[in-house]
Amino acid sequence: MTDLCFRTAADLARLIAAREISAVEVMEAHLARIEEVNPAVNAIVTLVPDAARRGAEAADAAVARGDALGPLHGLPVAHKDLTWTKGIRTTFGSPLFERFVPDADAIVVERLRAAGAITVGKTNVPEFGAGSQTFNALFGATRNPYDLTKTCGGSSGGAAVALATGMVPVADGNDLGGSLRNPAGFCNVVGFRPSPGRVPNWPNLAHWFPMAVQGPLARTVTDAALLLSAMAGPDPRAPISLSEPGTVFRPPLDADVAGKAVAWSRDLGGLPVDPRVTAVIEAERGTFERIGCTVEDAEPNMDGADEVFQVWRAWYFELYYGELLAKHRDAMKDTVVWNIEEGRRLTGPQLGAAARAWSALLDRVSRFMARYDYLVLPVSQVPPFDVDQPYVTEINGVRMDTYLDWMRSCAWISVLGLPAISVPCGFTEEGLPVGVQIVGRQHDDLGVLRLACAFEQLNRAGERRPASR
Amino acid sequence: MTDLCFRTAADLARLIAAREISAVEVMEAHLARIEEVNPAVNAIVTLVPDAARRGAEAADAAVARGDALGPLHGLPVAHKDLTWTKGIRTTFGSPLFERFVPDADAIVVERLRAAGAITVGKTNVPEFGAGSQTFNALFGATRNPYDLTKTCGGSSGGAAVALATGMVPVADGNDLGGSLRNPAGFCNVVGFRPSPGRVPNWPNLAHWFPMAVQGPLARTVTDAALLLSAMAGPDPRAPISLSEPGTVFRPPLDADVAGKAVAWSRDLGGLPVDPRVTAVIEAERGTFERIGCTVEDAEPNMDGADEVFQVWRAWYFELYYGELLAKHRDAMKDTVVWNIEEGRRLTGPQLGAAARAWSALLDRVSRFMARYDYLVLPVSQVPPFDVDQPYVTEINGVRMDTYLDWMRSCAWISVLGLPAISVPCGFTEEGLPVGVQIVGRQHDDLGVLRLACAFEQLNRAGERRPASR
Repeated sequence: MTDLCFRTAADLARLIAAREISAVEVMEAHLARIEEVNPAVNAIVTLVPDAARRGAEAADAAVARGDALGPLHGLPVAHKDLTWTKGIRTTFGSPLFERFVPDADAIVVERLRAAGAITVGKTNVPEFGAGSQTFNALFGATRNPYDLTKTCGGSSGGAAVALATGMVPVADGNDLGGSLRNPAGFCNVVGFRPSPGRVPNWPNLAHWFPMAVQGPLARTVTDAALLLSAMAGPDPRAPISLSEPGTVFRPPLDADVAGKAVAWSRDLGGLPVDPRVTAVIEAERGTFERIGCTVEDAEPNMDGADEVFQVWRAWYFELYYGELLAKHRDAMKDTVVWNIEEGRRLTGPQLGAAARAWSALLDRVSRFMARYDYLVLPVSQVPPFDVDQPYVTEINGVRMDTYLDWMRSCAWISVLGLPAISVPCGFTEEGLPVGVQIVGRQHDDLGVLRLACAFEQLNRAGERRPASR
Repeated sequence: MTDLCFRTAADLARLIAAREISAVEVMEAHLARIEEVNPAVNAIVTLVPDAARRGAEAADAAVARGDALGPLHGLPVAHKDLTWTKGIRTTFGSPLFERFVPDADAIVVERLRAAGAITVGKTNVPEFGAGSQTFNALFGATRNPYDLTKTCGGSSGGAAVALATGMVPVADGNDLGGSLRNPAGFCNVVGFRPSPGRVPNWPNLAHWFPMAVQGPLARTVTDAALLLSAMAGPDPRAPISLSEPGTVFRPPLDADVAGKAVAWSRDLGGLPVDPRVTAVIEAERGTFERIGCTVEDAEPNMDGADEVFQVWRAWYFELYYGELLAKHRDAMKDTVVWNIEEGRRLTGPQLGAAARAWSALLDRVSRFMARYDYLVLPVSQVPPFDVDQPYVTEINGVRMDTYLDWMRSCAWISVLGLPAISVPCGFTEEGLPVGVQIVGRQHDDLGVLRLACAFEQLNRAGERRPASR
């Protein structure tokens, strides 16, 4: 049964479609796995086993009838608890939404269901997704399966842990400042932040804001691509939709990436990076060379990225949660309150200056990326840290002033609007996972998946499962 | 010679490529036409005849050599004076930039040149493009060729007049609140506001802002499509680029539009519209039916559109011109000063509220547009007005408080992010042109061009040239 839970999504879908295994068997194996491992890690916070079993039975009936099957037919999936699920509690990790049951699905949920996936439940998040550490007053912390005393990262922390422990074969997430990448890196799975507009984002209070994106998490790059193929493609409800159909991401991803130029960034131009992270990433430089890439030390000039991220994130938090703060300050965590209040103090001209700085940064980086097909760097500047620590306050002796500052290696990439993936890279001496981040050119989501897939085939760190298994 | 100046761009390009006429002949005819008619209308404010003649000679040499030719090979083109032209003065209609000579071309200029078009000069604009009336302290007003006492509209006023009078066969423009559509409607030519990201916009101080777009003006829909085919397609310098290549817009546009559903909007849900405009538009409802469309009275709920437009436009003006105002207030027109100061007073939460209102509006209109393929309405709420009047202050007894308010029939459509074209529709009893606006579904720029082309073939108002000819 457990072995079934560590098969790839692609394999499971193929076996179900071929009637070599039933969707019910797959579902029962995963529900049993959840029962077994979830209490220790607290990744899935709402479970809908009855609906999931009914869905699996319906999936088998569809196979038996010879219906046309979607690419995820019969696969269990869990949705992030920031993502609207019709009829299923969606708390955003806040006690204020403990009983909120949406009357509509987010587009991403609609699409996964349309592709045949079956919802088993919701995955844990930090309160309102704030901070790359998954804990909240409602459900507590989600723990890293590679070391239960460490955080799994966030904000798609529950999703990453559910994947790492075999509770689901695929999961959705979203990413404003690193929320698909950081937990994937911390939990030795794959998290892909696609281009803005690649996965239509609805419901959404800020339709044109490009920094918050939806995307896939999986245990392998191929599975992430399979999931993306079901999530991507335009929708009239999302005005920044990109128009390619999702099918362009359908595996296989075996196009040759030899000859591609990689900019090798140790620290994105001076960010402090824990030497344990640097050691793991640097050891893999040769892997990119073995793939056939030319690898060159090169750091883009990220001037302005911090202002842009801090200003626009604060603006976004205020627009989402400002009214809530006015009524329920005591029920919101300090970092969220701080971030909203930062947003409240902003002026139009400050936002204008941040837009100009953003445009200047994009102009510089588009010239940089004209010379390189990819930018490769660490996902996170630190390995997984103590689960009781809300956020990292210091790296290599450099103090981090706010809960956001330690995540610049991801957040600054978000500002660029480029597709970026977190792929398992290796382990620290203590056995903590470290991810490598591959960033592609504008809208080259497919190119990112291809290089990541080639890297994964040689590196194989992603095959090392948590000892708790 | 003059006849050559009223041929379509498509015809001229074909004749040049077939060596039935030389690019030099075409250029000389247009330069002569400019000399003849420009003094009366003041559409072209910077002329580069020597470079244009050299370009035409080079174009003929390329034809003689049998080089591969772009789709605009040998066609004279004029660029809007808001658009950067390398080595050619670009004033933005402001005395402050009287001597500004950019060291780079805007992407749109680069692309027209790459497609074979030859720059003859720059077309007049209102100061910093503010207001749909083309006058400025540097060059004065551009006049409507159908009645020299009237305005040509704006801000792409010089471009529309240059087309209407046969000074160029194609011209570029841009549009935040109506600047491609209003002057086209006032001058009986075609102006197409494409989807945001359809034509990459660089240089740009606000790369993610979707409201300011580049687009084509021409005398026929087919020529506008031909021009768009050269302008469109992604560029890494423009992060909101859409990815289809420009070639998808290459004419012919003869796909059948029969059976399409048209929402027929008299007034966008209650805007005052001058009865002379309404009379012309209503008379053409049957034309859409003759095409085979189903036409149904229907008004989208545009609540919030005014707040969204006013707030974000003010924000944008401050970010572009705020620093200039601090130093050169006396050299800027009152409406620009007012708009910047509106932007200076904005707070982050006001911009957040406007983003939320924007998202709610988009959600409502995407549901509306699920029922209709097209929305059809007047381009402008008034016919061309006195050239000495800076802006319209009253329509049907309803007072317009600011210089922006009379342009809501265009500005509110900008807010929707949908493609919208202005096509010649007819004339008032006084002989003033009136345009009809066709709005398409998300990213359906091609569908808009197709319906516009079908309408143009039956309506033929665009064939009526100014009497001054």
